Amino acid sequence: MLSTPTGGRTAFFGKYAQVSHPPSPRLLQALADLLGPKGFSVDADAMAPWLTDWRGKYHGQAAAMLSPVSTDEVAEIVRLCAAEGAAIVPQGGNSGMVGGATPDASGHQLLLSLRRMNRIRSIDAAARTAVAEAGVVLENFHHAALDVGLRFPLTLGGKGSATIGGLVSTNAGGTQVLRHGTMRALVAGIEAVLPEGSIFDGLAPLKKDNRGYDLRHLLCGAEGTLGIVTAACLHLIPANAARQTAWVGLKSPEAALALLRKLDDGVGDALEGFEIVPKSSLDAVLRHIPQTRAPLANPAPWNALIELAGDDEGALAVPLEATLAAALDAGLIDDVALAKNERESEDFWKLRDSISEAERAEGPALQHDVSVPVDLMPRFIADNPARLAAEFPGVRTTSFGHLGDGNIHHHVQPPAGVDGQAWLAQHGAALSRAVYSHVIELGGSISAEHGIGQMKRDILAELDSPARLHALRAVKAGLDPAGLFNPGKLIG
Amino acid sequence: MLSTPTGGRTAFFGKYAQVSHPPSPRLLQALADLLGPKGFSVDADAMAPWLTDWRGKYHGQAAAMLSPVSTDEVAEIVRLCAAEGAAIVPQGGNSGMVGGATPDASGHQLLLSLRRMNRIRSIDAAARTAVAEAGVVLENFHHAALDVGLRFPLTLGGKGSATIGGLVSTNAGGTQVLRHGTMRALVAGIEAVLPEGSIFDGLAPLKKDNRGYDLRHLLCGAEGTLGIVTAACLHLIPANAARQTAWVGLKSPEAALALLRKLDDGVGDALEGFEIVPKSSLDAVLRHIPQTRAPLANPAPWNALIELAGDDEGALAVPLEATLAAALDAGLIDDVALAKNERESEDFWKLRDSISEAERAEGPALQHDVSVPVDLMPRFIADNPARLAAEFPGVRTTSFGHLGDGNIHHHVQPPAGVDGQAWLAQHGAALSRAVYSHVIELGGSISAEHGIGQMKRDILAELDSPARLHALRAVKAGLDPAGLFNPGKLIG
Repeated sequence: MLSTPTGGRTAFFGKYAQVSHPPSPRLLQALADLLGPKGFSVDADAMAPWLTDWRGKYHGQAAAMLSPVSTDEVAEIVRLCAAEGAAIVPQGGNSGMVGGATPDASGHQLLLSLRRMNRIRSIDAAARTAVAEAGVVLENFHHAALDVGLRFPLTLGGKGSATIGGLVSTNAGGTQVLRHGTMRALVAGIEAVLPEGSIFDGLAPLKKDNRGYDLRHLLCGAEGTLGIVTAACLHLIPANAARQTAWVGLKSPEAALALLRKLDDGVGDALEGFEIVPKSSLDAVLRHIPQTRAPLANPAPWNALIELAGDDEGALAVPLEATLAAALDAGLIDDVALAKNERESEDFWKLRDSISEAERAEGPALQHDVSVPVDLMPRFIADNPARLAAEFPGVRTTSFGHLGDGNIHHHVQPPAGVDGQAWLAQHGAALSRAVYSHVIELGGSISAEHGIGQMKRDILAELDSPARLHALRAVKAGLDPAGLFNPGKLIG
Repeated sequence: MLSTPTGGRTAFFGKYAQVSHPPSPRLLQALADLLGPKGFSVDADAMAPWLTDWRGKYHGQAAAMLSPVSTDEVAEIVRLCAAEGAAIVPQGGNSGMVGGATPDASGHQLLLSLRRMNRIRSIDAAARTAVAEAGVVLENFHHAALDVGLRFPLTLGGKGSATIGGLVSTNAGGTQVLRHGTMRALVAGIEAVLPEGSIFDGLAPLKKDNRGYDLRHLLCGAEGTLGIVTAACLHLIPANAARQTAWVGLKSPEAALALLRKLDDGVGDALEGFEIVPKSSLDAVLRHIPQTRAPLANPAPWNALIELAGDDEGALAVPLEATLAAALDAGLIDDVALAKNERESEDFWKLRDSISEAERAEGPALQHDVSVPVDLMPRFIADNPARLAAEFPGVRTTSFGHLGDGNIHHHVQPPAGVDGQAWLAQHGAALSRAVYSHVIELGGSISAEHGIGQMKRDILAELDSPARLHALRAVKAGLDPAGLFNPGKLIG
């Protein structure tokens, strides 16, 4: 899929401009002078890896790649670009899921890489906070926290490349959201360069601050369209000494939700993960992924993977086992396997983490990252397949993931026997629209954790409520009236 | 202090209009027709209580008081007013601290009272959420939650009049913020009418939602300048069965902070309150407030009031006593009194809650509600008196309050022997500016929990960073370009 350039004209979306003209030679020279040879590149080979998203779905061009090393350099870049209305596409680890960091195909946009801003400016073990620059890679940040006996409780598959700035700008999620929240819950302070070139210094970790609109929350999840996040002050927590993992067989998502409520009461804050996996997904994993085995002797229609974390193994195991025993007695669950050691915990998580890979081996499918209120999740999972089947006979749906967050990965496969790719090319857009419409009916979100980027920009504009779209556009128009920051993304 | 009308002209602050002209007879008639006799009033006596803030510092006039009973009526009011650019001042329980709900003196503004929208639309005990309309009084909401075995963990002195809409719009705090956060942490969803008259329905409690800018967080704390909050979906928690309260004597705010860290480690999430009280404030309470007595035999320079809450008294008492015993052994604290029963807990809290009243009895003082990063709080408390004394010889400062939140109530009394009121009239503004400048140097906030309203509007514009002010004005300009919502407040 190629982004479409806007062809040199200035189109208006809402009240902000959609710029597209090549940067002048004078601007490029000024940027080269500012950033030096390590910070400025127009070399096609050097830029190439950063002009395609990691899944290879989006391809773009850039007039130059800018790699500043300081917030002051970022601010100066923005001021220079703002002076002639040149568009800037910020990028961190380039591991996003929705093409949010890929420039368009015009070759007019400037790619602003934050990766060289990779210092951890400070760690305060007593206050349990750390200030990290935008380009710090998540895994490195994990290690830095562990070095002082602390943990940064957000992780995801791309931790080896995802950066703090990108994680903040996409309000990243992961498998520990149930307990610790998404990125915005972990951001104590933020530093960003605004579209007119000023530096917003909101790094001080204030627990209470009622000076008007919360810019920290506004910039978190804004996908670089309102400001370029240059650093964040992040909350850390004590490193856990113990965990307990259980694999449970049960009859339905309703039963899983009821179990989740029992765990809320029985183990409280120790509950860190609650994932559901249907039999079909587990079967696919067992079929396609080497060295996997079923945790339960008797397969169940649905499975729940439960993880508790805390200081003390006994303090976790006792209430967990009591809650699960009561659930067994009450007929709420069919069977339980408790991980006896770290290796068995890892084996359980491998089953969950391999679902996407196994599903790919089963053939092409449309993937949807959606959320609804937690209570409505069983209804969505039960009702959606029938709705889709009525309109698209023979499609097969699979739902798995973060039930505790109301966030499900909802995959739809073409009917058996057809050419899958061709069928999806013909029906995919309408099918996704049907999934998203159902989500919206239930008050849900068409993007639970991946964001909007360029992938969901048009469907957001089509399906979101007029009031919400109006407000998003109004905020963008207010803060970036010239449309310089990440045009073509989100609502650009 | 009288608000100044802008005298019929349209002044521009930033890029949004500052309107002031009387509403036309046609508009008033349309509003009267829409709302009926219970919802529309121009009666001076009926309006009078709502045209002065509860502390009697701000007085205004209104062209009419509008009291809708539904979100649809609010939306229709806004559309009618927007059509001719009439200004609207939203108001809940009228218990704010900064004049944010008091109209100006022009008599041109329409007072929009949300108090008749007082339904609790639903309580979901399993999901631990409830949807309350803007006009629901906090205390009534507490009772409704307790009726289903749950608790809404935010409370404050004005709970008998403060409303949900006002609490959301001011991002209210209180004494349980340490554990449960300010209002924004408890808001799962929001419904609001936007300045162009559309209804933003964001009530669904989504744990994950990455569809761009977070409007929930944007509206929370916006003081009615961006949208009129009509309802909120709020998180509830299990009602606690037990609490433990301790009064501790110690040498300094540094020691208090060190003790707070020990408690973080020792009792974890059970810690719900951590307030500090200097000897001078305790002495004032014992002097002026009947039926109070010192909790400790030997007075200490500083005191900490500690509260733990949880399911089980023993599970609270054991780690609390162990942590305090270790702190005594280490010389971190001088003395401890543990409340032996509910009455002693209440007695301890009465000492804390009576400080403002006792300080008033000591004579006039300038009060500042400020925050700095928790770690810097001891430094601020230690350094600020000397800074003030250098510029204003003889002034006496008292700092008390929510150390655990980095939020201190910082009171400054005139020098002994002068006419206090006259001295404050002459020096008060400069003195407050000196306090706020110090706060800002430390990265802090000139309003920790009370908001900006009209009281701090000018000092915010004077002292806040240009980048932040620019962003606040840009957001306002984007969402309310005509300046209809609560003009003259925050950054209006």
